[in-house]
Amino acid sequence: MYTQSDLKNLVDKAIVNLSFNHEAEKLIDPIRYILSIGGKRLRPVMALMSCNLFNDKIEEGVIPSAGLEIFHNFTLVHDDIIDQAPVRRNFPTVHTKWNTNQAILSGDVMAFIANDCFLQSPQRCLLKVFREFNKAAIEVCTGQQLDIDYERALLVSQNEYLRMIELKTAVLLAASAKIGALIGNAEDKDAEALYEFGRNLGLAFQIQDDLLDTYGDSKLFGKMQGGDIVANKKTILSVKAFELSKGRQFKHLQELYSGNAEDSEAKVKAVMEIYDRLNIRNITETLANEYIEKAFVMLDKVDIPRERKKELTSLASSLIGRDK
Amino acid sequence: MYTQSDLKNLVDKAIVNLSFNHEAEKLIDPIRYILSIGGKRLRPVMALMSCNLFNDKIEEGVIPSAGLEIFHNFTLVHDDIIDQAPVRRNFPTVHTKWNTNQAILSGDVMAFIANDCFLQSPQRCLLKVFREFNKAAIEVCTGQQLDIDYERALLVSQNEYLRMIELKTAVLLAASAKIGALIGNAEDKDAEALYEFGRNLGLAFQIQDDLLDTYGDSKLFGKMQGGDIVANKKTILSVKAFELSKGRQFKHLQELYSGNAEDSEAKVKAVMEIYDRLNIRNITETLANEYIEKAFVMLDKVDIPRERKKELTSLASSLIGRDK
Repeated sequence: MYTQSDLKNLVDKAIVNLSFNHEAEKLIDPIRYILSIGGKRLRPVMALMSCNLFNDKIEEGVIPSAGLEIFHNFTLVHDDIIDQAPVRRNFPTVHTKWNTNQAILSGDVMAFIANDCFLQSPQRCLLKVFREFNKAAIEVCTGQQLDIDYERALLVSQNEYLRMIELKTAVLLAASAKIGALIGNAEDKDAEALYEFGRNLGLAFQIQDDLLDTYGDSKLFGKMQGGDIVANKKTILSVKAFELSKGRQFKHLQELYSGNAEDSEAKVKAVMEIYDRLNIRNITETLANEYIEKAFVMLDKVDIPRERKKELTSLASSLIGRDK
Repeated sequence: MYTQSDLKNLVDKAIVNLSFNHEAEKLIDPIRYILSIGGKRLRPVMALMSCNLFNDKIEEGVIPSAGLEIFHNFTLVHDDIIDQAPVRRNFPTVHTKWNTNQAILSGDVMAFIANDCFLQSPQRCLLKVFREFNKAAIEVCTGQQLDIDYERALLVSQNEYLRMIELKTAVLLAASAKIGALIGNAEDKDAEALYEFGRNLGLAFQIQDDLLDTYGDSKLFGKMQGGDIVANKKTILSVKAFELSKGRQFKHLQELYSGNAEDSEAKVKAVMEIYDRLNIRNITETLANEYIEKAFVMLDKVDIPRERKKELTSLASSLIGRDK
C-alpha cells in the first residue's frame, strides 16, 4: 500500500512533469506558480488512496488525479479574484502577483489542462470518470455562486449553508474518492460508498474549519481567533445562531453582524457570548461528528478488508483533527 | 441536405432546451443572456454541415455542436472582461450588465457545460471529438494570450500575427469542421482535410476582417472606417506596414501609431497613405486569397460528390464575402 506521503510525491512529480503548450510562456507561468506554492494535494491523494484500495497498481490514476488538483487550483485562482484575496498559502495570489486579466486567462486554460488529464484515464472507465468530474465541476461553480449570493443575503438557513459548502467543497472530495475507485476498477456500489465517504468527510471538514476559526487555538492555526466574526462572514456558527436566536437576542446579533466594529475584540467577545448562550459550539460539533460518523460508516461499507483501508482512514482522521 | 438556416434553427433550439443546474439562477442568467443575443452560430453550423456531408442523419451531432457555441461564448464573456469591452452584438457585455465577478463565474461554468455537450457525442467517436475540442480550447487561450502580449509589443512580425489569429480564431473553426466530420463517421483523411479547410478559412476570414475595418464600406459594416488605426490596434495591415517600411517612413509610422491622435481622421488618412505607398491593401488581399484558395483545395480533397458540398461551399463563400 502506498502511504500519504508516497502519493503526494507521485502527484507532485506528475504535476512538475506536465507538458504545456509553450507558445505563450506568460500563460503558463502563473499555472506553474500556483501549483508550486504548496497545498496538501488532498484531492489527488484521496483519489489515489481510493484507487489503491482496489488495485496495487495505481499508475493509471496518477494523471487523472493530477487533473483534480489542477481543477481545484483553477477554482482557487478565480475565487481569489472574486474574493479580492491578496494572499494564498502565504504567497501573493495570482491576480496580485500578475493582474486580474492574467489570472482569468491562466485560470481558464487550467480548466482545459484538467480536461486533458481526465482524457488520459483508462479507456474502460474514461467516460464514467469524466462525467463524475464534470458534474462536480459544475456543482463547485454553483456552490461558489451560492457563497456569493449568501454573503449578501440577510439570513441564510442552516440547510442552505450546508448545501452551499457541500457544493463548494464536499462534492469535489467525493468525486475524487469515487474517481479513484473507478480507476481502481471498483464495483459501482463501492465507488458510490466512497463518494458518500468523501462527501460527508468534506462537510465535516468545512464545519470544523468554521469551528476552528472561532474556537481553535489561534497560535496553532496561525489565524486570528474570531476572524470570521470580525469579517461578518457567514459560517455554520453564525447561521445557526441567527436561526436559534429570537427577539432582543436576534436584534443584538444583527447589530453585531452589521457594519464594521471599531473594537473587534469586543465584537468577537459579544458574539461568542451569544453563541455560548445558544449552545452553538456544542450543536455544531455534534453536527460535524454526525458527518464524520456517516463518512466512516460509508468507508466500512466498502467491500475491502479493513486493514487495506488504513491509509484512507488515517487521511480522513488527520483531515478532521482526530489524529492527535 | 440541411441548409444553413435549418442548421442554425436546430442549434438555436438545442441551446434553448439545454438543461442547467438551477440551484443558483444567478449563475445561469448571464449564460442564457449571452446565448440569446444573437450570433451566427457559425461554429456549430459548420460542424453540422460537415457532419451532413457524410451522413443524412445529423441528430447525434447537435448537442456536441452546441458545445462549440457554448465554448465560443465562454471565451467571449471572458475576453470582453479582459478587453474592457462594453458592448457585444449591440448589447451590453455580461460584465457590464452584471459585474466582473459574475462574468468570471458564469463564464467558468460555461466551460463545463460545453464539456457536458461533448460528453454526449456518440460513443464510437467521443474520445476523438473531445480531444479535438480540448486541443482547440487550449490553443484559443494561447491565442488570446498572444493577442494580449502583442498589443503591448512594439513590433510583431507577420508570422507571429498570423499564428496568433490562427490560434485565437482559426483553430476553433477548424476543430468544428473536423468534429462534425468525425460525428458524421468520416474517414480520418477527410476529417483532416476539413480541419485544414476550416483553418484556412478562419485565417482568410480574420485577414479580411482587418481589411474591412480600413477599406470596407463603413455604412455597410456599421463600423467607423479605420477604427483599428485610430485605436493603434495591431492588424495584418499595420504589422505588414511596419515590416515593409524603412527609415523615415518607419519612424513616421511609429509616430502615428504612438499615443492618441487629436485628429483621428487625419491620422487614418496619414496611415492609409503609407499603406498605399507600401501596397499593403494588395499584399493583404493576396494573402487572404491564398488562404481562400487553400481552403477550397482542402474542401475539394474531401471524398464526397461536389454537389453534396454545396452548403458548405456557400457558407464559406458568404464568410469571406464571395457571395455577392
